[in-house]
Amino acid sequence: MASAIILALILELHGGSSSEMSGHRTAVLVVLDGLGDRPHPDLNGQTPLQAAKTPTFDRLAKEGQSGLMEVLGPGITPGSDAAHLTLFGYDFKETYPGRGPLEALGAGLPSKPGDVAFRSNFATVDENLIVVDRRAGREFTPEEHRILEEALKDIEVEGVKIHFIATVEHRGALVLEGEGLSGAITDNDPHETGKRILESKAKVPEAEKTAQVVNKLVDISYQRLKDLDMNREREARGLPPANILLLRGSGKHGEIPTLQDRYGISSVCLAGGALYIGCAKYVGMKHIPVEGQTGTIDTNFDGIAEKAIESINSGVNYLFIHIKAPDNASHDMNPEEKVLAIEKTDEMVGKIVQSVGDKIVLAVLGDHTSPCSVGEHTSDPVPVVLWSNFIRPDTVTQFSEMHAPSGALHTIRGIDIMPILLGYAGYIGKVGA
Amino acid sequence: MASAIILALILELHGGSSSEMSGHRTAVLVVLDGLGDRPHPDLNGQTPLQAAKTPTFDRLAKEGQSGLMEVLGPGITPGSDAAHLTLFGYDFKETYPGRGPLEALGAGLPSKPGDVAFRSNFATVDENLIVVDRRAGREFTPEEHRILEEALKDIEVEGVKIHFIATVEHRGALVLEGEGLSGAITDNDPHETGKRILESKAKVPEAEKTAQVVNKLVDISYQRLKDLDMNREREARGLPPANILLLRGSGKHGEIPTLQDRYGISSVCLAGGALYIGCAKYVGMKHIPVEGQTGTIDTNFDGIAEKAIESINSGVNYLFIHIKAPDNASHDMNPEEKVLAIEKTDEMVGKIVQSVGDKIVLAVLGDHTSPCSVGEHTSDPVPVVLWSNFIRPDTVTQFSEMHAPSGALHTIRGIDIMPILLGYAGYIGKVGA
Repeated sequence: MASAIILALILELHGGSSSEMSGHRTAVLVVLDGLGDRPHPDLNGQTPLQAAKTPTFDRLAKEGQSGLMEVLGPGITPGSDAAHLTLFGYDFKETYPGRGPLEALGAGLPSKPGDVAFRSNFATVDENLIVVDRRAGREFTPEEHRILEEALKDIEVEGVKIHFIATVEHRGALVLEGEGLSGAITDNDPHETGKRILESKAKVPEAEKTAQVVNKLVDISYQRLKDLDMNREREARGLPPANILLLRGSGKHGEIPTLQDRYGISSVCLAGGALYIGCAKYVGMKHIPVEGQTGTIDTNFDGIAEKAIESINSGVNYLFIHIKAPDNASHDMNPEEKVLAIEKTDEMVGKIVQSVGDKIVLAVLGDHTSPCSVGEHTSDPVPVVLWSNFIRPDTVTQFSEMHAPSGALHTIRGIDIMPILLGYAGYIGKVGA
Repeated sequence: MASAIILALILELHGGSSSEMSGHRTAVLVVLDGLGDRPHPDLNGQTPLQAAKTPTFDRLAKEGQSGLMEVLGPGITPGSDAAHLTLFGYDFKETYPGRGPLEALGAGLPSKPGDVAFRSNFATVDENLIVVDRRAGREFTPEEHRILEEALKDIEVEGVKIHFIATVEHRGALVLEGEGLSGAITDNDPHETGKRILESKAKVPEAEKTAQVVNKLVDISYQRLKDLDMNREREARGLPPANILLLRGSGKHGEIPTLQDRYGISSVCLAGGALYIGCAKYVGMKHIPVEGQTGTIDTNFDGIAEKAIESINSGVNYLFIHIKAPDNASHDMNPEEKVLAIEKTDEMVGKIVQSVGDKIVLAVLGDHTSPCSVGEHTSDPVPVVLWSNFIRPDTVTQFSEMHAPSGALHTIRGIDIMPILLGYAGYIGKVGA
């Protein structure tokens, strides 16, 4: 984040105060998760983005600037979380806190700098703490979630407060709040059945206390959960009891400047998946829920467009919209569904541009490539289109992986898109006189 | 400047001495200030550079290489001073000294590393030092300038020598020469009338002495100026007396290597505006005055071309030509005048290429974008064309913001143009064997 810190210093020294920002545009980032792809035989050798009918994206390309983006750098395959922190302008090498804090924030469990967070599973162990089912049967009713959350309330170990939330099925998030905590500890999750749960161990000396707290709280979770009536009822229904917490992905919520700190901007996130909401909250964005924004192909595209238009009309400075469906299709190796996800997103963006195009600077891009032929993230650069009604157009007239390289953006880095958007939108002051 | 220092070290280790440079080209940088623009309705949706008739620039594009330049970095709007230091190959974050030293050097007042410099105003204060007129009526005769300079001669405060020069109207520059000075002090200029002049304050402990010196010298300026006969005569003519100095833009002349230090090259600047001359002198260039080089649309283009040809024929290694007129037209939101400024510069460059094209490597570019539709600097990249009679041409055949992205340079950073020019001109030695 060296360059970001220097930039912040320069802005402090030479201008860029937020009071000068009236009348500026909303910078809008639309991420189609896993958008980048490769030619696919089922699509006559086209990529899903080429094969999709995308009148809006093609208009953006014609009137705006296209390019490619190395999200994390040449040859690096981006994970979604590292990719998103980068797209928000943060150097992931210095700011990536681990999965725990991002998932916890995304799940709606507050954390703050200094806290340590985990992803958790309800699991089933026998009396020797041998793992019988890492997901405790996977099925949970809302009432069971409530009972389990209640049972795990008000735990405090060595002055460290424990906060827990159940999320989807067996999953949850857990936050340690206290002094002198470290994220550098090992999982208690053995990651396979038939093994005893592990002692969490410190990876660095400063993490001894945290590992000790975790081992005690896991023991407490077993003591509190194993005899719950709810578990007897589950067993009666043929389901394994949820009698212990498995923890993984520990990470410390870092001391990072928010977008407000860095640029003096307000920012809003419209996303369905917990991880993306978590990344957005981690940099200080406000998450506005949209009914039916599920992160699937059936997400409420119309509702997202409406809420986006409302946010832009309200004058928010930066708006992040996340569409998960293309990546789901990629992982399912389903190019036709990816085409559909792209077409639906194109229609959604079309409504936004139609309604409030004169108030925005817009970038549409992928956070990584996920070829349907591979079913996983890969390191290929992703296509980007940048548009505003005042931007100099280039010669590109379609949005695709094949057309983007001819555009005026050439190849940018993932970390560049935030300053590019904010520069055009008017939120970065002049440096020097 | 880390990379520059590394480059200098490499050159020291592996060659590039100036004695081997006979027969090399003159690297010529022509900056059209504020050249970059956006499509403008008054120009049928073209940019001024597109609309201008530029046979020479188009020839350079056809025979040379085009590209875009992010002057300070993506999204950053460049000020002219930070931009020029960058174009000369210096990292502005480490070398930008503040406005004072650059303006002082540009005004012809020498300063050297360790000195602290200011921009100054002659102002009018009442007997309680309340500012009545921040510009003391703005009108000054050459004789009044002489009298005021004379009155402010031979001031020394606590071992610090004061040097002063009057420049245009009420403006001037002032340099402190001595040991242990700091630029981190506040202005004494309250920046509005009806307020008492401010005490200059140290922003850091090391600046206490400098703030004290400044406060004493401002008091001395008042004592020496208030009773001048000249001021009685101004009052008799209905003009406010020039009875005090307002100081602003303090900055310390840093310890930076000159172009000679870094590359072993001689360098010459042809510029009209004080700030650009100052930037050039700051990195060690020799400023050669051209009669009538005013920095306006009526600047002496022919005189600049003649002096450029003379300098190139004399074998200077690096020549910087600054044309201010396009930016003036941008700030006036006058696209037709910007077209004219570009056409006149094209003609000027044509004369140079016609006469000494076989002796140069030439870059023509903007230092920032200043859209006529905006009237201010913006963060859009600027177009660049690079030419020499030996350079590999690309497929671009016109010089414009729209054609440049298709060129062989793709997108470079501002800090890259100096080594690119000097590399082609033969002033950067081979690295390794």
